[in-house]
Order: sequence, then C-alpha cells, then structure tokens
Amino acid sequence: MVRVTIWNEYCHEREDAAVRAVYPDGIHGAVAAALGGQEDVSVTTATLYDEAGNKNPDCGLPATLLEATDVLIWWGHVRHWDVDDAVAEQVQQAVLRGMGLIVLHSGHMSKPFMRLMGTSCTLTWREDGDMERLWVIDPAHPIAAGLDRYFDLPNEETYGEPFDIPTPDELVFIGWYEGGEVFRSGCCWRRGLGRVFYFQPGHETFPSYYDSRVQQVLRNAVRWAQPTARKAELGCPNVTKPTAKFDE
Amino acid sequence: MVRVTIWNEYCHEREDAAVRAVYPDGIHGAVAAALGGQEDVSVTTATLYDEAGNKNPDCGLPATLLEATDVLIWWGHVRHWDVDDAVAEQVQQAVLRGMGLIVLHSGHMSKPFMRLMGTSCTLTWREDGDMERLWVIDPAHPIAAGLDRYFDLPNEETYGEPFDIPTPDELVFIGWYEGGEVFRSGCCWRRGLGRVFYFQPGHETFPSYYDSRVQQVLRNAVRWAQPTARKAELGCPNVTKPTAKFDE
Amino acid sequence: MVRVTIWNEYCHEREDAAVRAVYPDGIHGAVAAALGGQEDVSVTTATLYDEAGNKNPDCGLPATLLEATDVLIWWGHVRHWDVDDAVAEQVQQAVLRGMGLIVLHSGHMSKPFMRLMGTSCTLTWREDGDMERLWVIDPAHPIAAGLDRYFDLPNEETYGEPFDIPTPDELVFIGWYEGGEVFRSGCCWRRGLGRVFYFQPGHETFPSYYDSRVQQVLRNAVRWAQPTARKAELGCPNVTKPTAKFDE
Amino acid sequence: MVRVTIWNEYCHEREDAAVRAVYPDGIHGAVAAALGGQEDVSVTTATLYDEAGNKNPDCGLPATLLEATDVLIWWGHVRHWDVDDAVAEQVQQAVLRGMGLIVLHSGHMSKPFMRLMGTSCTLTWREDGDMERLWVIDPAHPIAAGLDRYFDLPNEETYGEPFDIPTPDELVFIGWYEGGEVFRSGCCWRRGLGRVFYFQPGHETFPSYYDSRVQQVLRNAVRWAQPTARKAELGCPNVTKPTAKFDE
Repeated sequence: MVRVTIWNEYCHEREDAAVRAVYPDGIHGAVAAALGGQEDVSVTTATLYDEAGNKNPDCGLPATLLEATDVLIWWGHVRHWDVDDAVAEQVQQAVLRGMGLIVLHSGHMSKPFMRLMGTSCTLTWREDGDMERLWVIDPAHPIAAGLDRYFDLPNEETYGEPFDIPTPDELVFIGWYEGGEVFRSGCCWRRGLGRVFYFQPGHETFPSYYDSRVQQVLRNAVRWAQPTARKAELGCPNVTKPTAKFDE
Repeated sequence: MVRVTIWNEYCHEREDAAVRAVYPDGIHGAVAAALGGQEDVSVTTATLYDEAGNKNPDCGLPATLLEATDVLIWWGHVRHWDVDDAVAEQVQQAVLRGMGLIVLHSGHMSKPFMRLMGTSCTLTWREDGDMERLWVIDPAHPIAAGLDRYFDLPNEETYGEPFDIPTPDELVFIGWYEGGEVFRSGCCWRRGLGRVFYFQPGHETFPSYYDSRVQQVLRNAVRWAQPTARKAELGCPNVTKPTAKFDE
Repeated sequence: MVRVTIWNEYCHEREDAAVRAVYPDGIHGAVAAALGGQEDVSVTTATLYDEAGNKNPDCGLPATLLEATDVLIWWGHVRHWDVDDAVAEQVQQAVLRGMGLIVLHSGHMSKPFMRLMGTSCTLTWREDGDMERLWVIDPAHPIAAGLDRYFDLPNEETYGEPFDIPTPDELVFIGWYEGGEVFRSGCCWRRGLGRVFYFQPGHETFPSYYDSRVQQVLRNAVRWAQPTARKAELGCPNVTKPTAKFDE
Repeated sequence: MVRVTIWNEYCHEREDAAVRAVYPDGIHGAVAAALGGQEDVSVTTATLYDEAGNKNPDCGLPATLLEATDVLIWWGHVRHWDVDDAVAEQVQQAVLRGMGLIVLHSGHMSKPFMRLMGTSCTLTWREDGDMERLWVIDPAHPIAAGLDRYFDLPNEETYGEPFDIPTPDELVFIGWYEGGEVFRSGCCWRRGLGRVFYFQPGHETFPSYYDSRVQQVLRNAVRWAQPTARKAELGCPNVTKPTAKFDE
C-alpha cells in the first residue's frame, strides 16, 4: 500500500471564482480523484488554509501525517512564504529519509523543493494559454509508461528555460509551447534516500489535472517515487574501524 | 516472470582443474543456483563452448533465445574475441530494444559491454587474492536492498582505477582492496530502452558466487534490469508534422 | 595552438546543384571559414570523396593527420557506411586517447559517433524547412559563451525526440521547431580522455553554417573540446601492488 | 586575474596548541601560501573569528568582499552553526550567480555547502590517523592535471560512505583508507551559474595543506571553479512571447 498525501496551498480556488469553476473540489481534490480507485494506493489530502481561509496548524502537515506518508504531492503558488520554515525543513528531511516527493507546476518555487535543489529554481513564464506538447524523452522510464510519443494540453501556463535546477538525474519530458519556448517539464532527482519528481503542468486556470495522460503521469510517478528504503534519522556517526564481514 | 539467461564462455572450468574444483557446475551453474528458487524468475544457461570444448552454434545465443530473454547475464574472460561480432551486435541491439544486461567481472572487456559503453573499458588488475570490501554508496538503490553498509569477500582479483567507462548513471558499490586500490565495483547505465549493470566480483579461482551477499546483489540486479518497455526494432523514421493529441 | 580538422563526406555539394549553390566551397569550407581568423586555431579540411567523386585513401583521414588533430569536426549524411570500419575505430580510439570530437547534424548516425555512444542514435526527422529556435539551457556553459537566451534559424531540418543517446553529461541547447518538435540540439559527453559535442544544425540545403551564432557555437565548442590530457595508447595493465607515494 | 578568498572559521588554531603547531599561520594561511606566487591569482583571507576569538562582523565576509570574489574557499568544522544564516544565504546566492566555491574537509556540514547540495551531507568518520590514498578517477579532469595515478597522505581523518550528496556531476578522486573505508574525496557540481568542488583532505591536526599534490589540486580547482558567466541577480521574470532572432 502506497500512502499518498496531496498538499495544496488552497488559495486560488477559495478566492477566485474562475478557478473554483475549474476546480470546485480544489486542485487537491482533482489530483486525489486522479489517484483514486487504485487498490494499493491510499490518498489523503492536506491544505495550508482551511475553507474559511485560516491557516491550518502545522501548515496542514503535522509530523504524524508526514511520518505516515510514502509519497507527498505538493501544489503551491502564491503563498510559498507562508509555509513555516520548520515545516519545509521537515518535508526536506522526510525526503532525505526516504519519502517520495512530487512537485507540481508553480511548486518549483516552494520551500521544500528549493531546499532540496539548492538552486534558485527560477524560470521564465507567460500566461498566454499556449498549447503545450509534452514529449517523452525517455520512453523506457516508468513515469512514461502507457504514454504515446507525446501528448498535448490545449492550454497551459508557459514556462521557459533556463530553469535553474541541478541537472536532473533522469529527464522524462520536455515541453514544447506554441509561443516558442521549451521547458524540461518532467525531471527526476534522487536526494538522500528519497526521490523527487517535478512535473510542469497544472496552472490553476486550466483543467490539466482532468487530462487522462496527466493523470497517468501522476499515477506512474507515485509508484516511481515510493520509498525503497527508510531511515529513522540522519546523522554523521563517529565509527570504529570496520571489521571483516565474511559470509558464513 | 523474469526470463534470465546466464551466458558463460566456459573455458576455465573445463581447462583448469583448480577452477573446476571451485565451480564444478561452471560459473553459469553457480549463478543459476543463486537465482534459482524464485517463483517469478526462470533461468536458462548458455555457453560459448560445449563440454568438449567445441564452440556452440551462434555462440550459444541463437536469436530465438535472445528474443526470449528479459535479462542476460554475461561472464567471459579469455575468449572475448571468439564471440562473433554478429552475436555481440545482436546482444547490443537487444539491450537497446529493452533487454537487461548484467556484466560480471572480466566481462568488462567483452564485446557487448564495450559496444554499449563506447569506451576502452580498461582498468588495472592484480591477482594477489586481496580481500575486497564492497561499500554501498547508494543505500536506497534497489540493487543494494537487503545489504548492510558493506560486505567483504576474503579473496578477489584486484581491479583498479581508472576504469575507462562513461560516468555511471547510478553508482551503487565502490570496492576497497587490502592492497591499496579502489574500484567502482557496481555501476548502472541506461542505454536505449535497456538497463546495464556491471558488477566486479567473480574471479574464476575464488568462490565469490557462493557468497550470500553476492547472490543477493545478483537477485536484486535481475529485478532492477528487467525491461520496462520493449521494441521490435530500432529505426530513424521520417515523420509527418505532429498533430494535436488532446484528451477526449 | 588548437589543431582542428574538419571532415566532410562531400557528396551533396558535388552531386546536387542546389546544395552547391548554398555551399560552393563545401560544407567543410564553410565551417573552416567560421573557424578561420583565430590566431591560436589552425584549420585543416579532409573529405571522404575528392572533387571527382573518388574515395580518398584512408577516407581522407590518414593516421598521421589524426595524430596531428586536437579537435575533429565531422559532417556526414548519405555515405556513413562507406567510411571504413578501421577508420571509424581509429577516430574512436583517438577520442578515448584525448582528441576532441564535434559531430554535426546528420553525423548522429556516423560510425565514430555511434561507436562512442553505444546506442542506436536514432531520432525522427522531417524536411519541411521549419524554423528552429535554439534555447540555451546552461547559460554558464563555455559552449554558450556570448549567446543570448536563444537564437533562431529561419529554416532547418526538423529532428525530433526520442533521440536515442546516453544521457548527456551536459545539455547545452534544446531546439524548438515551429512544426511542434523539441530536440536536444547541443549535447556534451566525456569519453575516455576525450570530449564529444553533438550539435544539431547544419542541413545541407540551408545556410546554417553562415549564421553568426552557429559560428560562435562552433568556435566555443572547439575550445571546450580541446584535449586536457593525451595518451599514446590504451591498455589494461597488470600492475604491482601500489606503494606509498608521500610528498617529500 | 582570479580573485580568491579563503575563509576559515579559525578556532582550532587559536584554541589548541597542537593544531597551532601544525598551522601557525592558520589553515587559511597555509592555503593562501599554496595559492600564492601565481601571477594571475590574487588571494585574500577571511575568518569567522579574529585573533582574540571575537566574531568578525558579517562573519568575515561582507557583501563587498563577496562581490569581489571569483572563487571562495571554505574551511569550517566546530562552529558551522555560528555562521549567520544571512551570510550562508549570500554565499549560496553568489555561487548561483557565478562564483566558484571550494569546500574543504569538514566543510561538508557547513551551511553554504548544505544549502547548495540540499541533502544531509552526512558521512561516517574516524580519527585514527589512517593513511589516505587518493586515486584519480578522471585523469582528463582539469582538477587532476599534473597528478600521477594516485597520491598518498600519511595521516588523515577517515571519512566513510555513504556520503549523502547528490550524485556529483564529475567525480575526480576516490579516497582509500588503510583502515578499510572508501570515500568520494573529490566531487564537482554545477549549481546555477557557479561551480562547486568538494575536497576531503585537511584535518586540522595533519599537515595535508603543505603536501605538494594537495596544493596542486587546490591550484587546479581554483582555475576550474572560476566564473564563466556572472549575473547581478536571480529572478523569475514574466516574459513576453519570444520574437524571431535571425542573424543579420
């Protein structure tokens, strides 16, 4: 059983009727629906703000929930800096101890992602509703399973290079935009014992999370990011000289 | 079901009594035993030479067998150049079309491995029976599952750097030798649709393939290397302009 | 002084008046002109065929020339398989011993490049004369020095992903095509002691090698690819146990 | 002219007579001497504490100094957490904007390095004064220029794997310790527009920075890490649709 927690800052949907019309159950609700109906995946949602716009305790991510999460999905945009540093650090540490992290769209500037990358994570952007075509660069990658050579989204926010990230350990998708940009839209990194996947689509004003191919990517990514090993804590131990470990 | 074929040049064991004493069923037999007893793994062996020392047709690897192989394990040493170029090319193409390849020990100079790497694959070597300590560099890697921080082999052939290979996509083990060398003893590459794992231990005069930790690595590597996607053939197609593929 | 040799198969320009009109001095001549006028760069050209269409001895690349080459630039297209295997192997070995190699456009299927990559090097292609926009992915890379965020070529052959190459050690350019494709148009690899750069532009029917930004890339790439170390030969030496090398 | 600043927390040498006996001019002084006498390198030193043990303003690194630094060398050990977060962030940002950073020995747990890596940067350690043998893994790497296949330090602190770092973009050295450990002792990363090199030797109680080969590595690393491009600030600009940039 893979235990997935979907975290959303949950501002646009509450505050903007146009966004609410696209995502009446919140972006977290749409992503949860995409992952639902799989026997071996359990889904929890968490938000920075509650329905009334009050900030949730522990930013919606108490330590107990984080401990019980195998893969965390993160959507944030306009309130990155309202996430407490302590929570961002706990997410970072959880990844290093083995949790998977899937960062969506504008989450490229979220505190947990920026901490894990170590770079500015900057890019260029335009909100012209360009068509985005996502090309599969690595057809054997598990995150691309079941996809054709490419797929298109009728409208997305345009993200452009340079995307200031460490070279991805695995590059799965490159996005083409009708207005003339390219973007490394699907990138994988291994960090500590955990795995991180960044996926570009998902602007709040467009229904990308209802697209069946985007949903396929999310389902694949959850399986790819699930922990292979976990550790209770990280440390820098003083050790004794190693002794021979022969097979008996 | 993962279909594994273990290929061995099968010279030392036939020609040298000391080696035969260590591997009476051949190195391929010892590796087969290490992989046996797993419900979802089927094992076939193939050799360059038959018991009488005659070269087998198709170097023991007819196209039909290669087609029916998910993961090929390769052990060769003193007759690399007796493997037909056509067979080496078929192995390379099979990997590019999705087959997994696990190259053992002196197989670093085998034709299939050299073709897939593109480098000289040279290293330095000593046959002093040094102890080798294999350190796990990437504890979350599936090939290291179930292992401690390190394990030791009482005697191995010493391989030394520089090992002229492309930078591994994933570095799993570094070997320490009591005589003073280090070696990148466990290396992963993605090539085409296939995966390649090189593993240092396995000199013909030492019983490394009976070691439980080496066997664990082999079992893990088979699972890691199994195909995620396969293709009937490779080509460079002339295409028409892509048309929009929206979700329906 | 960097000694550059520009190798061209030299078929299109001799055989096709339309191509000759674009490259009256041959593609090798245009590339040589782009590199000329630099005090510390000396340029030689070599071709597979002579003006009369006869194949040159040693495919135009005698061992003495290869020995005297720091960086080899390669353009080939329709006669890849007319390059002798022995010559292709000499080029591969020269790279592994430290020579730089810059492979242009359709050279992705040339023997030396395929040998160095180990993969099928396949891609998709269209000859519709699309505009190509080359985005700088790594603005600090020496090969991108002096370039803006992107530059455009009015017409190029369209190359599309998946491009079956090992993950580049450094990805410098991604190409955007107006017809809808993306392509990893500028890729770097380290192989042995040498460096390899692949650059997409340069279809024989388009004047890409007269473009000042393409020329800037070529000049930058020559400097990047020049040898840092060279070796007389490659080998796999049997060594003695290392002895301590303390500083005196 | 490469402008190098050598930063040292400068505690051990002031507080411990045994260390002061090894490094009477401070570790920064020994590193400065190693870099001195090169016409095109200018060297400045900076320390966290002054001679009297008072913390210097701006941790010894005022913004003006950082702006005037091409390559920053960092040695810290027991007061990592006394470095202000603001200073650590300024160093990180300077690297992302193009400055080179060379992190020595126990600096693996320094704030700037940890921020740039995004991982825990943990390792195992022993203070048994083991001999360390540093093997050159990448003989063509500029940082290994002028070195033999390996060199030895009679005594060093033993660092062991797993070293929790992102996979290095380039791995230059692997250390072998007589007590049985291996360690990725020389690692390169590109981050933003800057370059980072980590080098293991340099425990405060051993005279490693007087070793001619260590000094060679430091000189090489300074040249490798110097900026290729620099930027005044980092940002995430809203852009307009790109327009064609043809060559005139």
